[in-house]
Amino acid sequence: MRLSQFHLHTSKEVPAEAEIISHKLMLKAGMIRKLASGLYTWTPLGLRVLRKVERVVREEMDAAGAIEMLMPAVQPRELWEETGRWEKFGGQLLKIQDRKEAWYCYGPTHEEVITDFARQELASYKQLPACFYQIQTKFRDEIRPRFGVMRAREFLMKDAYSFHLDDADLDRQYEVMHEAYNRIFTRLGLEFRAVFADTGAIGGSASHEFHVLAASGEDAIAFSDASGYAANVELAEALAPGSRAAAGENMTRVETPYQRTCEAVAELLKVGLERTVKSVAVIGEQGFVLALVRGDHQINEIKLAKLPGLADYRMATEVEILENLGTEPGFIGPVKPLKRVHVIADRSVAAMTDFVLGANEKGFHLAGVNWGRDLPEPDAVADIRNVVAGDPSPDGSGRLQIARGIEVGHIFQLGRTYAAAMDCTVQDANGKAVTPTMGCYGVGVSRIVAAAIEQNHDANGIVWPEAMAPWQVVICIINPKKDPAVVVAAEALHRQLLGMGIEAAMDDRGLRPGAMFADMELIGIPHRIVVSERGIVAGTFEYRHRLAEASENIGLEALLMRIGASA
Amino acid sequence: MRLSQFHLHTSKEVPAEAEIISHKLMLKAGMIRKLASGLYTWTPLGLRVLRKVERVVREEMDAAGAIEMLMPAVQPRELWEETGRWEKFGGQLLKIQDRKEAWYCYGPTHEEVITDFARQELASYKQLPACFYQIQTKFRDEIRPRFGVMRAREFLMKDAYSFHLDDADLDRQYEVMHEAYNRIFTRLGLEFRAVFADTGAIGGSASHEFHVLAASGEDAIAFSDASGYAANVELAEALAPGSRAAAGENMTRVETPYQRTCEAVAELLKVGLERTVKSVAVIGEQGFVLALVRGDHQINEIKLAKLPGLADYRMATEVEILENLGTEPGFIGPVKPLKRVHVIADRSVAAMTDFVLGANEKGFHLAGVNWGRDLPEPDAVADIRNVVAGDPSPDGSGRLQIARGIEVGHIFQLGRTYAAAMDCTVQDANGKAVTPTMGCYGVGVSRIVAAAIEQNHDANGIVWPEAMAPWQVVICIINPKKDPAVVVAAEALHRQLLGMGIEAAMDDRGLRPGAMFADMELIGIPHRIVVSERGIVAGTFEYRHRLAEASENIGLEALLMRIGASA
Repeated sequence: MRLSQFHLHTSKEVPAEAEIISHKLMLKAGMIRKLASGLYTWTPLGLRVLRKVERVVREEMDAAGAIEMLMPAVQPRELWEETGRWEKFGGQLLKIQDRKEAWYCYGPTHEEVITDFARQELASYKQLPACFYQIQTKFRDEIRPRFGVMRAREFLMKDAYSFHLDDADLDRQYEVMHEAYNRIFTRLGLEFRAVFADTGAIGGSASHEFHVLAASGEDAIAFSDASGYAANVELAEALAPGSRAAAGENMTRVETPYQRTCEAVAELLKVGLERTVKSVAVIGEQGFVLALVRGDHQINEIKLAKLPGLADYRMATEVEILENLGTEPGFIGPVKPLKRVHVIADRSVAAMTDFVLGANEKGFHLAGVNWGRDLPEPDAVADIRNVVAGDPSPDGSGRLQIARGIEVGHIFQLGRTYAAAMDCTVQDANGKAVTPTMGCYGVGVSRIVAAAIEQNHDANGIVWPEAMAPWQVVICIINPKKDPAVVVAAEALHRQLLGMGIEAAMDDRGLRPGAMFADMELIGIPHRIVVSERGIVAGTFEYRHRLAEASENIGLEALLMRIGASA
Repeated sequence: MRLSQFHLHTSKEVPAEAEIISHKLMLKAGMIRKLASGLYTWTPLGLRVLRKVERVVREEMDAAGAIEMLMPAVQPRELWEETGRWEKFGGQLLKIQDRKEAWYCYGPTHEEVITDFARQELASYKQLPACFYQIQTKFRDEIRPRFGVMRAREFLMKDAYSFHLDDADLDRQYEVMHEAYNRIFTRLGLEFRAVFADTGAIGGSASHEFHVLAASGEDAIAFSDASGYAANVELAEALAPGSRAAAGENMTRVETPYQRTCEAVAELLKVGLERTVKSVAVIGEQGFVLALVRGDHQINEIKLAKLPGLADYRMATEVEILENLGTEPGFIGPVKPLKRVHVIADRSVAAMTDFVLGANEKGFHLAGVNWGRDLPEPDAVADIRNVVAGDPSPDGSGRLQIARGIEVGHIFQLGRTYAAAMDCTVQDANGKAVTPTMGCYGVGVSRIVAAAIEQNHDANGIVWPEAMAPWQVVICIINPKKDPAVVVAAEALHRQLLGMGIEAAMDDRGLRPGAMFADMELIGIPHRIVVSERGIVAGTFEYRHRLAEASENIGLEALLMRIGASA
């Protein structure tokens, strides 16, 4: 491809609304252009990258035995009413009325349509398992579209759906898809983690999110440094530490006139934050509850709400705290409360000795506190905190690291919810109508492009992984308009690369070298080769990898080996 | 591909609403399934064909120098108001309100969006010419969706748009696209014609429609048997015949009591229909007009309306006819009208001698009529009829044939209408802002699939052109479940075909031969190879081309040569 005949249009300025780096760089590189809120045009440059992602996704779906099809984007209201989602899906569902005043939606997902297809097409257990997928433009009417294509309203998605006679077969397919997803993100050259996810309200039996790791990610995820274990921080289990040591100190009452936080108390007393205990007062079904976590830990509201009687808990008011503990927030604790209160200790708190906590007296804390001696054993011991870096991995292998991630894929064992709601059955081997169990498997194709940039960029622009680059190689021609020999040499090199199956762009736009190199670094081409008169005379090319410190002059053979090896 | 692992689902019955053969066969073959009015799911089988068409279109667009991009399907109302089309486009425009009550449409076409893109991206004449395309799902809210994907509401389209500094450059690009379209339909193996089209209300300067020829086509098109000339029948020029012969008969008044049509009069008088003249009474700006065409010709309303004073003509009422001609319809003519009337003769009528027409007297016609002698020369002579088969081609080469066609592509010189309405300018070489001129170029990708079936089918089903077939070859395995040797032999053959770059399906579903062959004929696979125990023993394969009368047993080498030669 000659760039003089390609529409490449980089910009220096980006609008203020571009908040995150991928949005800025996609605009600067000219990969996308905004049409309206949450609606983006993929320019020729951007589309090249999008198609690379699409191709890898398609190849891996095919390899996993999924069969491609294409369902309409526009879906009739009636189907969504069968599952109750016409109302339940909420404001993200873009509802449309046609000229006959019939209601439709622009599909944000296709469980209803595929289940309707299945109930017409699948009659016998002999047709199962079946796994279909499509790669299609979807629409979610985000209340606040932002971050460019990261949270656009119209976006490209791969969605797959599978149908099975029994749970074991769904498990098998789920594993196949899990592996396919691993291959997709590995082939794309991205650092990622498959994260255990909460199956939540939909109530399926297993679910994994695939996250591209990036500092700007919306989700904090915890993963083992020794195994494949990964989970959303809020869902990762904090294991119980070893057993409690023997008490070494006496309980003392210490004056803490202005110290209302664990951090301030620890600083005043010159003890580690991990020696302090934070008391959180909440109201559950049975009334007042004190939840205790270590001063260096955070309470996890999801875990807390899973305990008996706390499904709908709320924070206690200051009045309720005064009534139960006899003091005000900042000095509260489980020792000698005014009334008998229910105490839930995090596993790590239950294992502490000689710890520090509020004295239930304004301006005072207690130090050297010990379970059993200074206060009763907790009413309950449970995992109620977020994991932190260094915690042992819940799978028993290695220690947890914490990183931020961007969700780009989600696989889900749906179970029979949709098939049952829509009366989709097949005949089993005995001629009995049975409801198949389903899996669904999504990839945010356009989102991957933005996520990859969040993970792979530097001060000069995008740094594409080889498999996602619009071209693997750019041949920069110095003075193409004045020097026909360099163009001839560039074309010869271009042909050679093509013969090796390597996609190269020729920058024959006639820019001065600085501007040309800046453009190529901005758009993130992995390999840059400069063809100049000087190089032709010397029989060398100037080569530089996008991440190299400097360029080097090497002969043709070395050049082709270098590129061939990495491409 | 093993068909046991592919979702193939043919049916014997089709719903009554399937009126045309392509709709019936696509349903029977299981290529599409209806979701709602004008909304179809492309099954795995259907999608394979759709993707083949898409790939050919993409390759030819790339080869023509068009650059692929992807615009949003959902477009903001504001853009459509700039061109006035928010109202003018009519009911086909599917209007959508989002959660913030802003108006959008599901794009039926993208002139507004691409012109908005161009006015932001194109600043200088140096960036011209520019030609962009996309392959995208579009939506037209048809008032009466029917014929399956032939007139669906949601459909796949390739739309391209080009921008040029001057008309000459637009002409150049138009020719390039014209050629690309010729290659697309040629590669797809379709019989087609590029038809001169009316530029109509949009007012561009040139336009061609590409029609796939098929008996069921909605449009009648006329094309030369000797040149590339083709036009919609209504637009094809009927050339003037040779000069008028000398009169040979006297004018006589003949009794035609019940004969009110040329056909009836010709039969009564035992003269050829081409000797009679049909008089059509209309009211134009200047009043009453008699338009004359030969009895065997049809008047062309479009051509008539292009004559001076007839832009908004209407048919005359019986009262107006009586007033002007003194008689009633069925017996009217230009000879001795009651009042002086304006007579427009078709070119062929002006060249007639000794002809027959109404006598302006109830129950009578005149025979042996001659211009100049029996009535004055016509006030105007013009081309006001439809061409018929056998007419000389207007380009002077060959004679016209008439066929029916299905429009699958349209190329159009738009001119400056959109760019001017949307204030899209570029700086010319002198730094002056100038409005670029535009072309647009559409292909109905999903429609091509249906049109190809209309053209290529027989009593047993679809007969795919090689390039559009879901697979070029099917290997039918007899008794795969009982006889492992046939499966091994089929797999070996499959690998050999793959090595030759030929896509083959293996029918390992275990159907009995009759049902299996019927399925493969229905879905239109060009080459069928049967692998059976008997064949293995004999060292031959049973081969049959989809259009062959019978199968033949041939050896491997001959088989591969046969398939390789035609694929």
